[in-house]
Amino acid sequence: MILTVTLNPAWDVTYRVPRLTPHGSHRVASVLERPGGKGLNVARVLHALGEETLATGLAGGATGALVTGALDVPHAFAAIAGETRRTVTVVDTDATIFNEAGPDVRPDEWAAFQESFAALAAGASVAVLSGSLPPGLPEDAYAVLTRLARDAGARVLVDAGGPALRAAAEARPDLLKPNEAEMTAAGLDPAALGESGALVVSRGADGMVAVTPGGCFEAVPHEVVAGNPTGAGDAAAAALAVALRDRTPWPRALGEAVALSAAAVAAPAAGEFDPDVLRRHRRATKVRETSCPW
Amino acid sequence: MILTVTLNPAWDVTYRVPRLTPHGSHRVASVLERPGGKGLNVARVLHALGEETLATGLAGGATGALVTGALDVPHAFAAIAGETRRTVTVVDTDATIFNEAGPDVRPDEWAAFQESFAALAAGASVAVLSGSLPPGLPEDAYAVLTRLARDAGARVLVDAGGPALRAAAEARPDLLKPNEAEMTAAGLDPAALGESGALVVSRGADGMVAVTPGGCFEAVPHEVVAGNPTGAGDAAAAALAVALRDRTPWPRALGEAVALSAAAVAAPAAGEFDPDVLRRHRRATKVRETSCPW
Repeated sequence: MILTVTLNPAWDVTYRVPRLTPHGSHRVASVLERPGGKGLNVARVLHALGEETLATGLAGGATGALVTGALDVPHAFAAIAGETRRTVTVVDTDATIFNEAGPDVRPDEWAAFQESFAALAAGASVAVLSGSLPPGLPEDAYAVLTRLARDAGARVLVDAGGPALRAAAEARPDLLKPNEAEMTAAGLDPAALGESGALVVSRGADGMVAVTPGGCFEAVPHEVVAGNPTGAGDAAAAALAVALRDRTPWPRALGEAVALSAAAVAAPAAGEFDPDVLRRHRRATKVRETSCPW
Repeated sequence: MILTVTLNPAWDVTYRVPRLTPHGSHRVASVLERPGGKGLNVARVLHALGEETLATGLAGGATGALVTGALDVPHAFAAIAGETRRTVTVVDTDATIFNEAGPDVRPDEWAAFQESFAALAAGASVAVLSGSLPPGLPEDAYAVLTRLARDAGARVLVDAGGPALRAAAEARPDLLKPNEAEMTAAGLDPAALGESGALVVSRGADGMVAVTPGGCFEAVPHEVVAGNPTGAGDAAAAALAVALRDRTPWPRALGEAVALSAAAVAAPAAGEFDPDVLRRHRRATKVRETSCPW
C-alpha cells in the first residue's frame, strides 16, 4: 500500500464570474467545490492507476468533514479541533486565488498523528509527504515523519517547498521531488542529496531531471500538452512512488513520471489523468543520461 | 412574538488581504465568518432590544447547518435539500463581494414551508419578510406569505426589492420598507400603496420618508454617523415591526426607525447597534409632516 499524507488539505471552491472588478459586487455564475491538497491528488492518481493507496492527514471542523466526506479514495484522516482551510478561486479570463492559512494544529494533535502515522506506515511500502504545513506544526514535520516511516520499513517521497523541504532533506528521504522554484528557494545542495537519496526536479513543460546515486537523467515530454497544469506534479509523485516501491531503475521511473504528468495536464481536474495521453507519452517519452546540472 | 423570515440566508465569509490583485494568488490574512441575511439581522436587533422574536426561513446542506448552528436568536428553520449559499467578501481598502445565488428550492419544500409559516404566524403579532428569494421560489412568494400571515392574524412588513417587492405590494402588506433605489427599480406607485398600507422608504444618510393613510412624514438623523451601513435598514425594519405591533403613531415610529438605524451604523457588525448612539438619536431625531413626495 502507498500511504499519502496531506497535513493541510483544503476545500477548494471555484467561482466563475463574467469579470472580476475590485471593490465591486459579483453574482457568482457557477460554483464548483471539491477536496484539495497535493497528497489527495497523489492518492487519486494512484487509485485511478489501480494501485492500493490510503490517504491520511489532518482534518477538522465542518470544512474537514466536507473534505473527508467527499473523498473518493480510501482514507484515514485524524480529527483535529481546528477548522480545515478553504481556498476560493475566482475565474474570469484567468484565476484569482484566495488561500486560507489552515487550522492551528495543537502539539498534542501532532503527537497523536505521529503515532497513527507510524502505525499506518508499518503497512505501507512507500509514504508520500506532500504540500504545505498548517500553522502550529514545526518546520521539521516532514523530517519527523520521514524518520518514522523509515523506522516502520517504508520508503519515503517528499514533495514540498520552503523551510519544510530544507528540513525534510536533512532526514534523507529516499526521494525529494520539488519543482525548480521550490528547490532554488529552499537553497538545497543537490550534490549532497544525491549521495544517499535521489532528487527529481520538475521543470514544467521542460520535463524533469533526476539526480541519483547512479547518475543524472533528463526526460522531456515528446509534445507540448495543452490543459490544466495544476496537479501535474502530483501525478509525477504518484508515478515516482510506484517506482520507489518496485525499485524501478531511475531512467524508466523518470519517463513514467513525465508521461503521467503530461496525461494529468490533459485532464480537466487535479488528481485525474487522460489514459490515451498516458499511453502515447509512455511510448514516446525519451530519457537520456545527462551531466549532473548543478 | 415578532416572526422574521429569511428565505435565502447566507454564510458570510470575510477575507482580509493586503491588496486584491486580479489574477494573483493571495494569502488570506484573517477570516471572519457568521450567518447572514436581512431577516436574521432584524431578529438579532429585536433580540438585543429585549423583544420576543423567532427567526424562520429555509436552510440546507452543510452551509445551512453552519448558519443555524451559529444563530444566537431563537429560530425554527425548515430544512431543504439544496445547499444554503455563501457570500465571500474580500476586504483590502474596500470590499469586493462574491454572492452565490442560493439553493434551488423545490415546489414541495416551498409548500411545506408555507404550512409551517402559517402555524408560526398564528403565534406572531407581526411577520417581517426580508431579503432576496432563492432560485426556485415564485416571484410572488412574499405576496403568498403576506396573505397567510394576515389570515393568521399577524401584521406584515416586507423589506425587499425588484419583482419580489412589486409582487408583494399587490398583496397589500401593512408596511413596505424598500430603499429608494429598490422602489424606483420596482416601479412602485406609492400613492396607491398609501391608501391601505404604509410605505417607508430609507434614503441612507438622508433619513426616511413614510407615506401613510394619515399623511406623509420625514425624519432625518440629527448628525451623520460614521461606520458600517450594512444592516442599518434591517435595524429600521426591527423598529418598524415593533411599531406595527404596538400601533405606534407613524411619526414616532419613523423617529425610532431613524434612531435605531443610526445606532446600527455605529456598531461594527450587521444585526448589532450601539445603545449610546440609540439614546442620543432617540432624543434628538426630529420628525416633521411633509407634502407627500411622489
